[in-house]
Amino acid sequence: MTTTVGAPTTFDLGPAQALSCRECGHQIPLAPEFACAECFGPLEVKYSFGEIRREDIEAGPKNIWRYRDLLPVPSDVDTYPNTEPGLTRLVKADRLAAALGVKSLWVKDDTGNPTHSFKDRVVAVALAAARQLGFRVLACPSTGNLANATAAAAARAGWESVVLIPSSLEKAKILTTAVYDGALIAVDGNYDDVNRLATELAAEHEDWAFVNVNVRPYYAEGSKTLAFEIAEQLGWRLPQQVVVPIASGAQLTKVDKGFRELGTLGLVEETPYRVFGAQATGCSPVSAAYKAGHDVVQPVRPDTIARSLAIGAPADGPYVLDVVNRTNGAIEDVSDEEVVEGIRLLARTEGIFTETAGGVTVATAKKLIETGKLDPEAETVLLITGDGLKTLDAIEAKVGPRATVPPSADAVHQALGF
Amino acid sequence: MTTTVGAPTTFDLGPAQALSCRECGHQIPLAPEFACAECFGPLEVKYSFGEIRREDIEAGPKNIWRYRDLLPVPSDVDTYPNTEPGLTRLVKADRLAAALGVKSLWVKDDTGNPTHSFKDRVVAVALAAARQLGFRVLACPSTGNLANATAAAAARAGWESVVLIPSSLEKAKILTTAVYDGALIAVDGNYDDVNRLATELAAEHEDWAFVNVNVRPYYAEGSKTLAFEIAEQLGWRLPQQVVVPIASGAQLTKVDKGFRELGTLGLVEETPYRVFGAQATGCSPVSAAYKAGHDVVQPVRPDTIARSLAIGAPADGPYVLDVVNRTNGAIEDVSDEEVVEGIRLLARTEGIFTETAGGVTVATAKKLIETGKLDPEAETVLLITGDGLKTLDAIEAKVGPRATVPPSADAVHQALGF
Repeated sequence: MTTTVGAPTTFDLGPAQALSCRECGHQIPLAPEFACAECFGPLEVKYSFGEIRREDIEAGPKNIWRYRDLLPVPSDVDTYPNTEPGLTRLVKADRLAAALGVKSLWVKDDTGNPTHSFKDRVVAVALAAARQLGFRVLACPSTGNLANATAAAAARAGWESVVLIPSSLEKAKILTTAVYDGALIAVDGNYDDVNRLATELAAEHEDWAFVNVNVRPYYAEGSKTLAFEIAEQLGWRLPQQVVVPIASGAQLTKVDKGFRELGTLGLVEETPYRVFGAQATGCSPVSAAYKAGHDVVQPVRPDTIARSLAIGAPADGPYVLDVVNRTNGAIEDVSDEEVVEGIRLLARTEGIFTETAGGVTVATAKKLIETGKLDPEAETVLLITGDGLKTLDAIEAKVGPRATVPPSADAVHQALGF
Repeated sequence: MTTTVGAPTTFDLGPAQALSCRECGHQIPLAPEFACAECFGPLEVKYSFGEIRREDIEAGPKNIWRYRDLLPVPSDVDTYPNTEPGLTRLVKADRLAAALGVKSLWVKDDTGNPTHSFKDRVVAVALAAARQLGFRVLACPSTGNLANATAAAAARAGWESVVLIPSSLEKAKILTTAVYDGALIAVDGNYDDVNRLATELAAEHEDWAFVNVNVRPYYAEGSKTLAFEIAEQLGWRLPQQVVVPIASGAQLTKVDKGFRELGTLGLVEETPYRVFGAQATGCSPVSAAYKAGHDVVQPVRPDTIARSLAIGAPADGPYVLDVVNRTNGAIEDVSDEEVVEGIRLLARTEGIFTETAGGVTVATAKKLIETGKLDPEAETVLLITGDGLKTLDAIEAKVGPRATVPPSADAVHQALGF
């Protein structure tokens, strides 16, 4: 690894044309930048889309690259080795719908991705953009899903990776990243320390793409593919309501951006939709701001079992509030106990085992219905973004065998109550 | 649950027409039977296929039901709630190919299934057939993947499930089945005891479908979908070589059956292919029989970390030998150490984290290449049938962080050797 590269001066990132500051609107050419030089606001990708037809998308790869003409990636993106995420199941959840008392419910099940979370989407887009931007190493600070996705994507692409984790992380989470054999570095410190270190290293190493730091504008666009897939899988139309978990808030804002782009491009009819946000009460700064009617988000110190959502100072918090207010949605938060009940309810009714973040989404949907905020007559999609195999500790105290019996049919019958 | 049902006298199982004994050839009408009344041999599904066109398959559901006209299921099978398994990625594995010294290599990555193993395929077919045959409860004896798949499929369908496991099973494996909230019964005994108990209960309860016992003829057909998908994903042609792990051996024989059916129906050209079998040395009765030139398989007591393949008396052993000999393949076995190396090699080169069974397949492929049995010039597909998240203990001693450092850039640089 070297610390300097001769970066090209123009970049082929498909329809992406520029970076624009979300605060002051200042535009710059496409570059490996993430913060506005004028006001330090976050940069976002701006596009100039060509004509995009449903048939061309449908004839494309059976993964997120079918939407390559809507992403900041070159048109030959699928010819480079990548984890081929996306096109996960959209499941008609009639039994969950009945349990929740709603008419029409879908579950977008992102546990089917290569490393079993939606992070494979954003990392794949980050890697594709990073390659074009002249980076040579894929990196991230993470405590879980992102570490898995980054290490796997780098391995598949033949890139070196540097993944920074807090040294206190549970052994299982270390193993699931270490197995890909990149440079996994355990840092003596908490996640904030790890994050700060990532920012420092990103500044020092011009060829290190920290997916969620210095290539964040490109990375975040990957979440639009959730919106694209939902619309295509519904038969090229938008749902009326969608419930999205909030960590940094980027996913929620990008789902909204994806729906709007499809409408603008004429790929779907521009029907109204409502975006709802879900948080765990133990880390609910955006929910608190929403309920208080604020347009800024006060940072909190996270204390929840939903660790993949435990971002106390969510970068996209204000933009989440904008989207939710504009679409007439709402934000709600649920206790850790409700999170576990949400996991169990989804497993029991639909056979889908989600991690704590999915439990947050299900439990929040339940609460939104009970409080009349989510319309039970309107078609609703829940985003299930990660896998229960990664957060077994959350359910450990609650589930187990119905009975332990000697090896006889009579004993089984007795255990089953007949 | 009741123990008797009024079973219908004819069954709509699509193209399936009869059950035929694999030993004596005796045929009976479709029924909830699994053993020949004449000779106690295993029964197999016989079909009368209609005209089947590639275009119709391609226009079908994005899961195994696109092949419904080749399976023992009714034509409206996809209208019933099911886990929608299949159409998992076929990954061009160029980096693994380079590491193994072969020209053209593919990995069929079945970790993308709903409960992350190929068992979702066979259970989905078992459930669909069981419904038609008048069963009302989905059941199995299992120590892992099958328990997950059965409990999830039953939950999604709204069926009751009875899953029998040895009470000594690790907590993580209990949780991943218990979460679906069926009747999970822990049995004080080993897997053989649990299996015997399942057979006893299947005889007592006319409406309990033990997927791998009394509906086994239908269940096993689900593995054909691996062959169908491989051929379709290769652009409607057969690979030249395929490496399949052997537990009971059913999967290997059904992959062969699937390839032959596609050829007979004119969906692919009938090009020659070779089928290779993979076992862990600690449970390698079929490999031992192959090497000794026997046509019967001597049972063994399993002792391997590849527990999902640890069937000491594989029911389909002789049929596996038939297939491998007929197709000019071979069977090989590898040590537990090689299994772990196989897991790590696949993760490092392709970003795919497989369970021990996948490690067996990769390590066996390596050995077959090194010993000249597998042709490095011929196109080869490896079947990766389960997920590394379920067998973390296998790699625990071998992988970990490169370094543990204080939170400073200098410390990271030092750890990375610059």
